[in-house]
Amino acid sequence: MADTLRSVNPTTGAEFGDPIPETGPDAVARIAADARAAAPGLAAMRPTERGDLMRAVAAALAAHEEAIVAVADAESGLGDVRLRGELTRTTGQFELYAAYAETGAALDIVIDHAAPRATPPRPDLRRLQIPLGPVAVYAASNFPLAFGVAGTDTAAALAAGCPVVAKAHASQPATAVMLGQIITEALERRGADPRLLAVVSGFQAGLDLIRDPNIKAAAFTGSIAGGRALAEEAAGREEPIPFFGELGSLNPVVVTPEAVAQRGAALAEEFAASMTLGAGQFCTKPGVLFLPEGHGLDEALAEAVRAKQVHPMLNRRIQEAYTAEASRLAAHPQARFAVEPSLEDDGFAVTPGLVEAPAAAIDGDDTLLHECFGPTALVLTYADTAELERVLPQLPGGLTATVQLASSADAVAQKALPLLAERSGRVIVNAWPTGVAVTHAQHHGGPWPAATNARHTSVGTGAIARFARPVAYQSTPEPLLPEALHDDNPLGVQRVVDGVLEPAGKA
Amino acid sequence: MADTLRSVNPTTGAEFGDPIPETGPDAVARIAADARAAAPGLAAMRPTERGDLMRAVAAALAAHEEAIVAVADAESGLGDVRLRGELTRTTGQFELYAAYAETGAALDIVIDHAAPRATPPRPDLRRLQIPLGPVAVYAASNFPLAFGVAGTDTAAALAAGCPVVAKAHASQPATAVMLGQIITEALERRGADPRLLAVVSGFQAGLDLIRDPNIKAAAFTGSIAGGRALAEEAAGREEPIPFFGELGSLNPVVVTPEAVAQRGAALAEEFAASMTLGAGQFCTKPGVLFLPEGHGLDEALAEAVRAKQVHPMLNRRIQEAYTAEASRLAAHPQARFAVEPSLEDDGFAVTPGLVEAPAAAIDGDDTLLHECFGPTALVLTYADTAELERVLPQLPGGLTATVQLASSADAVAQKALPLLAERSGRVIVNAWPTGVAVTHAQHHGGPWPAATNARHTSVGTGAIARFARPVAYQSTPEPLLPEALHDDNPLGVQRVVDGVLEPAGKA
Repeated sequence: MADTLRSVNPTTGAEFGDPIPETGPDAVARIAADARAAAPGLAAMRPTERGDLMRAVAAALAAHEEAIVAVADAESGLGDVRLRGELTRTTGQFELYAAYAETGAALDIVIDHAAPRATPPRPDLRRLQIPLGPVAVYAASNFPLAFGVAGTDTAAALAAGCPVVAKAHASQPATAVMLGQIITEALERRGADPRLLAVVSGFQAGLDLIRDPNIKAAAFTGSIAGGRALAEEAAGREEPIPFFGELGSLNPVVVTPEAVAQRGAALAEEFAASMTLGAGQFCTKPGVLFLPEGHGLDEALAEAVRAKQVHPMLNRRIQEAYTAEASRLAAHPQARFAVEPSLEDDGFAVTPGLVEAPAAAIDGDDTLLHECFGPTALVLTYADTAELERVLPQLPGGLTATVQLASSADAVAQKALPLLAERSGRVIVNAWPTGVAVTHAQHHGGPWPAATNARHTSVGTGAIARFARPVAYQSTPEPLLPEALHDDNPLGVQRVVDGVLEPAGKA
Repeated sequence: MADTLRSVNPTTGAEFGDPIPETGPDAVARIAADARAAAPGLAAMRPTERGDLMRAVAAALAAHEEAIVAVADAESGLGDVRLRGELTRTTGQFELYAAYAETGAALDIVIDHAAPRATPPRPDLRRLQIPLGPVAVYAASNFPLAFGVAGTDTAAALAAGCPVVAKAHASQPATAVMLGQIITEALERRGADPRLLAVVSGFQAGLDLIRDPNIKAAAFTGSIAGGRALAEEAAGREEPIPFFGELGSLNPVVVTPEAVAQRGAALAEEFAASMTLGAGQFCTKPGVLFLPEGHGLDEALAEAVRAKQVHPMLNRRIQEAYTAEASRLAAHPQARFAVEPSLEDDGFAVTPGLVEAPAAAIDGDDTLLHECFGPTALVLTYADTAELERVLPQLPGGLTATVQLASSADAVAQKALPLLAERSGRVIVNAWPTGVAVTHAQHHGGPWPAATNARHTSVGTGAIARFARPVAYQSTPEPLLPEALHDDNPLGVQRVVDGVLEPAGKA
């Protein structure tokens, strides 16, 4: 008799719905083999066919909006408004990645014609990207839709031409099953191979999946400990596979003295809003706020934070870890609670919190430099630019870093920004890190521990490249070349030919 | 008293020259810290400055051709002609990567201007690549120059803006020291920071290096066992770092029946020449030749192989492993020696060999599918297309795969080529895999165990991307942006702006 998972409503803590069976080892192996069997068909599709398929998936997700939002809300407690917005983002990701795949830019085609009279002579060489094969996607709980079974990793893998086996998050098993069914049905309705997407459930199934020889890459959004463990599984396989983990981040914000003078009260309110968004469970939550000494915002910050109503935490474990971690921060000899967070009795409810300390407390001491997952943040007061220059390089790698300034002439901004760029994937000025635009230029990743590999993004069209690898064809007659590499460019894809870029579109 | 390394002449087996001290742990730590200290200066250079520096290094290497070739020949036994050619390739790599860095293409710049009225609104986002920091380069012995201290990994890392700490190969310690001195002097003569390149020596120094927190990436060319061990070190660090290993490859060649009929004797001769080049110590040595049953080339192949004079092996360990591995292959119940290789008395000299077996011998049995490093290859006779279709998917991942055909209508070629592309980094038609052109479209990598990560190339301008990571700037005022991201493109670098590519060059 298989173990089962149960849906739990974070607003009440009560179980609901039918038990969902965990996927046993034989089933994981069969599902991975099915994905492998479906891979060549997807790889062989023209970019436009793959794009059509992805748009059909987006349309099916949109068509089931009511049902998806209802189950995701019941399992996550994130609320109707937020989840409708997240679904729009999710379908938008599918559409953007589809459009990008269609341009052929993701094929990264480079054609160097032969140069027989060069020294040394050069043969005809044509390179494109081919899909890696089935990808294991580990769904995150903090974005049940945008980073879940139908999230950015799944959309990017399909755009690259890879089947997906998604591992449901234990906190949202019914959402995962529903998303899987909607996508599978959408594929079948179009006559596509339904094995291009599958969902597995259970902790052991997640391990079995990354160890399965038919899985050729994995993507993960979650904790440092979980990501590190899976990364080591991926590296330790008989055939190691690439693992793309997006893990923890402090997302520091540096406020210049001039910005405090210009709009201190507004910044206090905006900060409280950003760090409590989604109950502080965003990977881009601004976790550390650097304020200049004498900022005079203590009251404003405490009031703004206290006033925030937050959603319940995603599950019991996260709820309990939240106050434990906040208390660990406040226990630092130089730190104290400005607002003490609490666990509430209703379901996984909590209240927001704020810890404050001098910036000197992190000089040579990383006690305070650990992410507190939830709506508690740390305010660090810096004495002067010199102190910032000393402590900013001691921050761990992060997804984002933000500077709030009055003018680009602010001395603190000029010193801080390059130091923050050194340790971050995205640098932001006069905005807040929560909110990750899905665009071409976006980079959602960063130095360890923000990501397992700082070279890759999990959001934006750059995310597709993670799931493909180059193949170069040397001196290969045109009838044996993939169509995308034919001289007359029958697919009309973007290419670099003899060093000159040809944009997408028929010649 | 430090341990020392000694140069050994492979043609005689005799030690020569002064003992070279191994680098102790304190010295490794100091050298890595120096590289870290030198990193910001290199990172801040404009692409043209970095290009000038790299061309100065190339010129210095060329100016010392006589001395470099002499010491490399004495330590490798690869001969004057080969090593002069290899030095030209090495300086050419520096020049090509410099020119590419100057175009800004390696910065991979994407600019998306703000779209405040889009749904959802999009902020201004501008992305470029920044250097990872100091790179550990593990020099290979089979290409003392092109893959050594001054090889493709070093040139690519410097082009990306990363200082290099190179670990000398134990078989060529004096070559490594000389190359390091020439580069350091060239840097100093131009007023550049001499800490941008350093050389460490000794097995333990290589381990200390990859564990050093100041090292931010590593590149390696060598054995599967060595690469796997270093990859695990890189992944197991407190802060994991990317590791780019180029390991072993069988480089299969499939000959169609029509090609045998058209030019069988010439193919036998060409194959023997390719697989004995550099004493079979090329990573692209064609190790497995698939011939159709009844090919009638047994005599021609055996004669061609027997007639080859080969260089001595690089060291005693490689020499001894060579005949041991060849004998292991021939011991397979379905295999036999067509030409039995031998160890000779002079230094590390050997004679070439050939093992033959039916292709059916590798069906469900990987005994024969291990690289024999040295001038012995395997001939597998296939019964028909169906048999090839069954066994080709069982080949391990490789750097290259080759088809020799008479016409692109050859049925075997049409079936084999896509199956080979699935498992290779480069597919070649009617040429031989030895010889890797240094171009934009080149891909020198492949599925495990050809490389630790199939997504990366170690040769060609694509090699530079391994040592950089993206940073996105959101809503950042121009005075705080890197120059390369300014709207008016003052550096004249290639960029994609709002989805449209702007080629390099001043506007």
